[in-house]
Order: sequence, then structure tokens, then C-alpha cells
Amino acid sequence: MHKNFKNIDKVVFGRSSFNQLDSIIAEKRHDHNKYFLFIVDNYFKGKELEKRVPAKPEDIVMFINVDAEEPTTKLIDTIRDNILKSKGLPAGVVGIGGGSIMDIAKAVSLMFTNEGSSTLYQGLNLIKKPGIYHLGVPTVSGTGAECSMTAVLTGSEKKLGLKCEWTVFNQVILDPDLTGTVPKEQWFFTGMDTYIHCIESEKGSCNNTYSYAYAEEALKLCRDVFYNDGAGQNAVNDEKLMVASLMGGLSLTVSEVGICHAISYGLSKILHTRHCYSNCLVFQHLADFYPQGVKEFKEMLAKHNISLPENLSKGWTNEQIAEMAQVAYKLTHMWNHYYGADWRNKVTLDSIEALFRRL
Amino acid sequence: MHKNFKNIDKVVFGRSSFNQLDSIIAEKRHDHNKYFLFIVDNYFKGKELEKRVPAKPEDIVMFINVDAEEPTTKLIDTIRDNILKSKGLPAGVVGIGGGSIMDIAKAVSLMFTNEGSSTLYQGLNLIKKPGIYHLGVPTVSGTGAECSMTAVLTGSEKKLGLKCEWTVFNQVILDPDLTGTVPKEQWFFTGMDTYIHCIESEKGSCNNTYSYAYAEEALKLCRDVFYNDGAGQNAVNDEKLMVASLMGGLSLTVSEVGICHAISYGLSKILHTRHCYSNCLVFQHLADFYPQGVKEFKEMLAKHNISLPENLSKGWTNEQIAEMAQVAYKLTHMWNHYYGADWRNKVTLDSIEALFRRL
Repeated sequence: MHKNFKNIDKVVFGRSSFNQLDSIIAEKRHDHNKYFLFIVDNYFKGKELEKRVPAKPEDIVMFINVDAEEPTTKLIDTIRDNILKSKGLPAGVVGIGGGSIMDIAKAVSLMFTNEGSSTLYQGLNLIKKPGIYHLGVPTVSGTGAECSMTAVLTGSEKKLGLKCEWTVFNQVILDPDLTGTVPKEQWFFTGMDTYIHCIESEKGSCNNTYSYAYAEEALKLCRDVFYNDGAGQNAVNDEKLMVASLMGGLSLTVSEVGICHAISYGLSKILHTRHCYSNCLVFQHLADFYPQGVKEFKEMLAKHNISLPENLSKGWTNEQIAEMAQVAYKLTHMWNHYYGADWRNKVTLDSIEALFRRL
Repeated sequence: MHKNFKNIDKVVFGRSSFNQLDSIIAEKRHDHNKYFLFIVDNYFKGKELEKRVPAKPEDIVMFINVDAEEPTTKLIDTIRDNILKSKGLPAGVVGIGGGSIMDIAKAVSLMFTNEGSSTLYQGLNLIKKPGIYHLGVPTVSGTGAECSMTAVLTGSEKKLGLKCEWTVFNQVILDPDLTGTVPKEQWFFTGMDTYIHCIESEKGSCNNTYSYAYAEEALKLCRDVFYNDGAGQNAVNDEKLMVASLMGGLSLTVSEVGICHAISYGLSKILHTRHCYSNCLVFQHLADFYPQGVKEFKEMLAKHNISLPENLSKGWTNEQIAEMAQVAYKLTHMWNHYYGADWRNKVTLDSIEALFRRL
């Protein structure tokens, strides 16, 4: 059985394409209670982009600070409950921001039409009904959240996505103008998320010619942005990284992520480390699993003068490490991808704890 | 204004994925008059694939011979009228075959819900209503018809697609097992359609970083299949060409095709030459427009011992050439892509006739 994966319904790519947002949602405004919910990264509060959000008087514009922690099931439930109580069902949701804002917009869209807490739906195909119309405008490139079938949420028990075909955006607007002012470290760590997606996607049982082609081109673009002559933050590379993010996200959608993401999820769940940074903290120690990828990753770190802390695990308790390993072990699809169906013969809680102790 | 393009809703890729067709359409069988229409290339009549078509007693399986000529508006109208009269509106349409069968399935799906002749809808966004559910299973790789927003039809007055977001398939099944027995020349000419899509997409005003990335990877795959060591018809290359076809199709969807397609359409319209072959007949003479592409194309011809006739235009009347030029001139979006908005200052009916006389 091969995966039957859902694409983004519609995509527009190009500089200033954000200006098309107003006309794109115009025809959707008649649905439900005839207003739109805009969920915007708090970073843009007071900045020029705030004025460009095409909100009408009836709309809700909600700024969310995602610096402190990744989206939680509690956050999603609260937004949904408050909005349904005050204004009823919106016509649609627009998310403007990085991967966390994309995930919030996708999750809120689904939870508007699915009853109870979002913790009930963490997993594959647990969502019962399609969500409302949702549109994503990424302002940072790399997570692939703009095209993935999952909205990753941290719940009381697990960090796991609402994953189904209805999670995927109805529309994405890819405007490279919006990513031009991303701070350097965030640019690097988020871009490396795509790089790691491709390295992990390629190596494992779920990889096929389709996912490989997407990873191959996304890696080529990543190398232009981070590795080759001409690397660095500039207009051309902003465009390339935006396309790489999408292609890397499509590659992992068809294939799967691997060991780095499993360990990274454990770290994020217990210590609330941000996803892309967490991936980088982990990936530097996985040279025995992804030798060429880790070698190149370290060269890119050096090229951009980015340093990553080590010996972090010295400050963690045995209980914390055991908890992290539990979270990672449960991500069975990732272990299955890297090791194959008999992964349980090769991976134990102890061997996973040993990986965390590398950090 | 950047193009807002529609993706295929859902895609499955992999060997034997054709076996998933039955379960994929099961949930759609309840719509309308609760039966499916399968449109299958006549090539498969009596072959093993015929037995594998998951038709129920209530379904219609229609074999169509597309060897003689490309899909016409009359063919589409006739299928639609006969089926509506005999069994009413189907739940969905499944097309199994090459680019022509893909185009027929897409066009029939649209014409089931849009009144009058399909000639009324040849052009961009002329279709008034979404079609019925339609699913494509390509059995030859290269045309990109499996992912494009257009269903190309030859009408009494023009060769032009029904082009809108509803043209795009709801589902595509990409099973490389199905392309293993394509005759060598068809394999080559159809594959070259993708190659030419990419060369044309890259060169012109509609090209951007997104369309370029898709063309770049599709060209890389084409070179593996037709040019590099290991080139030729084999299982690995069948998979690569299937992905190349999709990526090349996406590249031209975001960008545009160019001069080769404009001339090729003129030739097909007047002399009923098959599209992919027609492209090859034309492309060999366009070295001044696409120098590197034509050079490589000729090397691929030589590598696979394919010869193309020349001096064809010697056998054509002046009237025929004038008619061909008229057809080509009307494909304004292609000239606009290659030359830019002021293309009318650079292209005349005479200069187009001169291109036809190269053939």
C-alpha cells in the first residue's frame, strides 16, 4: 500500500504575491458567519505587514507570540472555544508567520468542526470532519508546514500532529518578500529543518523515486543557499529557500522523517526546545546514521559562524532523559522508516537514551 | 499578478499502486447515478490490464483508439451526450492511458456539468461549473497531462485546451509498472515532450524560481533516462520518467511553454500530427531559440537511433502553411512567454510561416 497524499489545493508563488490575498479570499467570505480569522505572528505587530493584512471590520486579527513555546493542544482548544462563543464559525482562517503559525492555522481550522479537545485527534486520520477553509502565508522558510499533512501540537501526553488530508492548506501564498528580514540564526536553523527533512527522507524504507526527486532538488537549492559560492541571506536565496522548503516538505510527506526528528521531538516535548533549533542540536551528533549529511551540516555551521551548544545532557536528570526516550520511542513511523519493519529488534529505550546522552 | 495554480488533489506513487484504484474510488461511488465511467486506451483491449480494471456491473468501460488523431471537441461532446442519455450522470470518470486519454477524461468530466459544445469552452477560465470527480492513471510518461490545468482539444476552429482549476484531476495514480511496455519510439517522443516542456518553461518571462526548480529536477531525471550512462528503457528509468513528467508538467503550469509548442500546435491542427511527435519534428529546427536544448536533443536522438524526417514542408501547400501560422499566432501566451509583452513587434505571420518552412 503506497501513501495517497494530499496536495495543497492552490499555490501562488512570487514577489508581492501577498497583495493577492484580499482577492483570493473574497469569494470565500460568504461562508458560515461571513468573517475571517487572521492568525499572525506577534513579530509583525506594529510592523509594516500588520497594515497590509486585508482585514475587514468584521474580521478578527489575532497576534500570537510563538517565541516562548511551540503550539499546544490547549492553545488551539482555547482559540476555538473563545471564537465560537463570541462570533461563531468563521468563513476561513489565514495564518501569517512561521511553522508554528502554520500549524496553529491548520489545527484551528480542523478543530472548528471537530468536537472536544484537540488531544483526541493527535495521530493519523483521527479527525472526523473536514475543517474550514484555511490559507497559509509562510514568513520563514524551512519547516515545510506550508505543505505538510500534519499540524504538530504539543499535548499533555505527547507531541504529535493532527495528521490527515484535511490538514493540508486550501491555499498557500509564497511571497519571498516576506522572508527577507528573518534574523540570521532563525534563517539558518529553519533552513536546516528542510535540509534535515531531505537527508532523513532519502535514507529509509519509505523513500522512493518520487520523494527522492523532491529531496534531490531541495538539497540542491539548500546547498545554493547555505553551502556553495553565493551562499547567504539575499533575495535570490530567499526565493530558493522558499521553494526548497516546499519541496523538502513534499519529500517527507511521500517518504518520512527519521532519527533526528524522533530525538528532536523528545527534546522539544520535555524541555520545550523550539523544533528547528532542536533538530540542529540533535543532528550534529548523528554522523553514524547520516554521515555525509552531518559532515556537510557542520561545514554549513562553520561557514555561517553558527555555534551549537554541546554537553547539554549533563544538566538533565535521568528521569528527564527517560521521559524524552519514551516520547521518541513512540514515534514508530520514524524508526520504521530508518530501520525497516523489524526496528524493534534494533532500537530500545536504552539505545534511545544513549542518543539523548550524546547531546 | 502571479498565477494561482491548482494542484492535483491527491497522488499515489509506486509500483502496483494501480491495485489501490478500487478502494480509492469506493467512497465516491455513491454520487449522482452511482456508477463509474472508465475511459481506457484501446491499446489495452484484450491485454492483462483490461482484466485489472475494477469495474462493477453497473459501470461503463469504454475503449478509445487515440492512435489516429488527438482528442476532438466532437469526440468529447458525443461521449457526454450518449452517456447522459443512456445512464445519466456518473459518479466519476477514470482515464487509463497516455496524454490523449488523460485529456479526454478531464474534458468529459467538465462537459458532464457544462452545457453545450466543448468548443464554447476552449480557452482560459471559460468553464462555468466544476466537473465531476475524475481520476487519471497515466500509462505513458511525458505529456504532463496528469497534472496540467488544461485538457487540450482540437475543435473545428482551434486546437486549444479547456483550461481552469477544475480541469485538474482529483486523483492521480502513478504506477511505473504500467509504463514498462511502451514501444520504444513512443517512449522517446513522449519523454521528449517533458524535456521540451522544461527547456521552454525555463526560457521566458513567465519563468520564476519555482518553475525553474521543477524544470531543473525534471531535466536531471530526463538526462538519466535518455542521455547519461544507464540511459534507456528499464525499470529504474520508468520511475524517473514518470516523476519527470509530473515535475515538467508542474513547471510549465507555473511558467509557460514556448515557440516549439506554438509551431507544433499549428502542425497538429492542420495535419493531425500527434503532439509529442510533432514537438520533436519542430524542436530539431529551433537551435537559434533553444541552442543548448536542441544540441542535447539531437544527441539523444542519435543515442537511441531515432530518426526524424525533414523537408516535410516541401509537400505542403502555401494555404496549409498559412493556416498553420494562423493557429500558431493565436497562441499569444506562448509568444508572450518567449519574447515578452512586446512580442507582436518581433513576431509576424510571415516570420511564423518561415518557421514552418524549416520543417
